[in-house]
Amino acid sequence: MAAFTLSVAAGARALSSAARDAAWKLGRLNHVAIAVPEMEKARSFYREVLGGRVSEAVPLAEHGVSTSFVELGNAKLELLEPLGPDSPILGFLRSRGLGGIHHICIEVERLPAAVQQLRAHRVRTLSPGPQIGAHGKPVIFLHPKDCGGVLVELEEA
Amino acid sequence: MAAFTLSVAAGARALSSAARDAAWKLGRLNHVAIAVPEMEKARSFYREVLGGRVSEAVPLAEHGVSTSFVELGNAKLELLEPLGPDSPILGFLRSRGLGGIHHICIEVERLPAAVQQLRAHRVRTLSPGPQIGAHGKPVIFLHPKDCGGVLVELEEA
Repeated sequence: MAAFTLSVAAGARALSSAARDAAWKLGRLNHVAIAVPEMEKARSFYREVLGGRVSEAVPLAEHGVSTSFVELGNAKLELLEPLGPDSPILGFLRSRGLGGIHHICIEVERLPAAVQQLRAHRVRTLSPGPQIGAHGKPVIFLHPKDCGGVLVELEEA
Repeated sequence: MAAFTLSVAAGARALSSAARDAAWKLGRLNHVAIAVPEMEKARSFYREVLGGRVSEAVPLAEHGVSTSFVELGNAKLELLEPLGPDSPILGFLRSRGLGGIHHICIEVERLPAAVQQLRAHRVRTLSPGPQIGAHGKPVIFLHPKDCGGVLVELEEA
């Protein structure tokens, strides 16, 4: 009986994998976001000390952050500085004075299908549905408690 | 006089940039390392729930970790599980029960020159010099307090 249960479970897993393959697809690592208390100090570090290509900082009032990108060729670091009193990264920075790695962003094909299937796996999202992110594409954040302590942003590829 | 000082400082910066360009070069994002308390649970999450390509876990006793990679095409996630009582990630995991993003690894051309120049910028390293890392290449970790709270691994490209 145990063997039968196991084989049914394995079948369900295989089916679930096949269904997922059809419904959505995990893609490239888009960026690693780094929360910084002082944008110009951080930009200077990545540009002058590490020798990276660093974009101008852009204030995004509707997201409560200023952003600047360090272009590493295959992927980017996204520097995030709090903007305004309701910035979503203020709590993170209060707990880590210096700053730190805030989240990773992975591209997916067919984001709405991904969200639906992730919810079936009991992975919660931080908003009811995808929203337009800092890069003008639909994004959603997965709850870090459901992702091994990692804040994962999914972005429509 | 202030203008003269400024222009000398700008000249020194330009020279420093040029010297750095000649001496070493920042490269691609190699991986983002994620500390996990239970490797098989983490591998299952990235494979079954997120649909990633996840390699077998490999114990690396000399580094005090087991590693498994999630291949995202342009870059990798490196899952790190503590191995042995002296594992270097035990402290990190004690402070974050669930796990979390541990470090980023960026490739560089001419790692010894990079280390020399970073030290001139007062960026400390966690070891006296490069060591052979988990992938068989020379690596060095930069002190997170000198990198805005981010643990940065540099790997010879």
